[in-house]
Amino acid sequence: MEQRHAFFISDSTGLTSEALGNALLAQFDQVEFVKSYHPYIDSTEKALEVCREIDQVFRDTGLKPLIFDTILNRDLRLIVAQANGVLMDVIGTFLPKLESELGALSAMRVGKSHANPTEEKAQRRIDAVNYALDQDDGARTNRYDLADIILVGPSRSAKTPSCLYIAMQFGLFAANYPLTEEDLESGDLPRKLLPYKHKLFGLTIDPDRLAAIREERRAGSRYASIKQCRWELEEVRLIYQRHQIPVIDTTRLSVEEIATQIILRTGLKRRV
Amino acid sequence: MEQRHAFFISDSTGLTSEALGNALLAQFDQVEFVKSYHPYIDSTEKALEVCREIDQVFRDTGLKPLIFDTILNRDLRLIVAQANGVLMDVIGTFLPKLESELGALSAMRVGKSHANPTEEKAQRRIDAVNYALDQDDGARTNRYDLADIILVGPSRSAKTPSCLYIAMQFGLFAANYPLTEEDLESGDLPRKLLPYKHKLFGLTIDPDRLAAIREERRAGSRYASIKQCRWELEEVRLIYQRHQIPVIDTTRLSVEEIATQIILRTGLKRRV
Repeated sequence: MEQRHAFFISDSTGLTSEALGNALLAQFDQVEFVKSYHPYIDSTEKALEVCREIDQVFRDTGLKPLIFDTILNRDLRLIVAQANGVLMDVIGTFLPKLESELGALSAMRVGKSHANPTEEKAQRRIDAVNYALDQDDGARTNRYDLADIILVGPSRSAKTPSCLYIAMQFGLFAANYPLTEEDLESGDLPRKLLPYKHKLFGLTIDPDRLAAIREERRAGSRYASIKQCRWELEEVRLIYQRHQIPVIDTTRLSVEEIATQIILRTGLKRRV
Repeated sequence: MEQRHAFFISDSTGLTSEALGNALLAQFDQVEFVKSYHPYIDSTEKALEVCREIDQVFRDTGLKPLIFDTILNRDLRLIVAQANGVLMDVIGTFLPKLESELGALSAMRVGKSHANPTEEKAQRRIDAVNYALDQDDGARTNRYDLADIILVGPSRSAKTPSCLYIAMQFGLFAANYPLTEEDLESGDLPRKLLPYKHKLFGLTIDPDRLAAIREERRAGSRYASIKQCRWELEEVRLIYQRHQIPVIDTTRLSVEEIATQIILRTGLKRRV
């Protein structure tokens, strides 16, 4: 397979260049990308050093590396533009357009997108993460009044990472409650969830996938058997149906996708 | 303050358009942005509906909304391009450049950047999150052999969200251990951390900020007093110094920034 080097360069965390670059590169199945990440390129020396690395790759491979650059500082961006690469100049492409539209020069301050978040918003996020941790796995169920959303589903259907992602990305209070075998044998929602029925969102997953995940955790157990997984998933399906709880199938979704789709479908407003 | 509407549109989660758009808009202090997010615009009907919303805002305000569009499907992107907005066509700008460079038509599959991640990588991330949860707050210290990194610091210095972010974003195993009053009175690192000294990374924070955060948690307590906070921070400083543990000041950093800077400084390689 053809190999191609890709540089992700930023004068801040680099998460934007990373997200954008990876979205674009994912379109090219037939190329194997050798990725290197260069966050915090915030001085002439560091910019020159990255240029040297790019030039070295070009000399070694004879192919210009791809460069996804979100450096805000104009001078540093111009340095990177001199390297022997194929430049995706994200800021240089869109910022002038925005400036002419908004009729003002931008602040051009490094790291403004993440740095110095208003304290209130930063705190909100940390509160949301702490809430998700406190309320994880049905550990405590006494603060469901504070929840924006409560994820329910069988063990290992991705409730916890989804809650954490919702907390981190949207600043929302997400609790989760595992529907255990005991709950399922009763054939109905646990009583403590009933007052919060309108906050529930159900997770489901393909039985084979669930069995495989559980097998990693407890190999050879009844818990991991396909029979048990099928039974649990069928029982939760009936409960979701009876109470008209919205459902998402997490089998082929990333954590980001699960979280984003849930928020979209509930219509919840993000708080950060 | 001038108001301007901004639309973030995607046929997938929209996290890329969001990251990029917000990074660019953060450059314009003097404008108040009214943001609306439109993920999963994956059909003609949905694309037309967003166009109607954009046109409505234009009619109501007389100002063209800004549009950050990362729709991969060419037909849907062309629909959005017809709306009365100022379009930042992220994919349409860079994808042709990549195609001509890489000498092949892109796959143009919706959601490829997040969807269908290789199972191995998806599982690695979930494992990393579970590890961070298991090893949170010094709860268990018996799996430090598996840790890629162990964050230490006083209570409420942002260890937990930083670990979770490291797990989620980089797929690394991040544990954390709170240096408690008891630990600090002994004047040295807890013995159980000594074998893992090379994995430690120290967190610190401004004493006033720490006191404010603790005050929210336990108002009026000794724990939240500025005197106690100053003492703990001075003690951890001495410990970090004695053992040459690298330190990061989290006071003015977002969780993303803390995580990214730590990974950069340790030189750890991401696993997803």
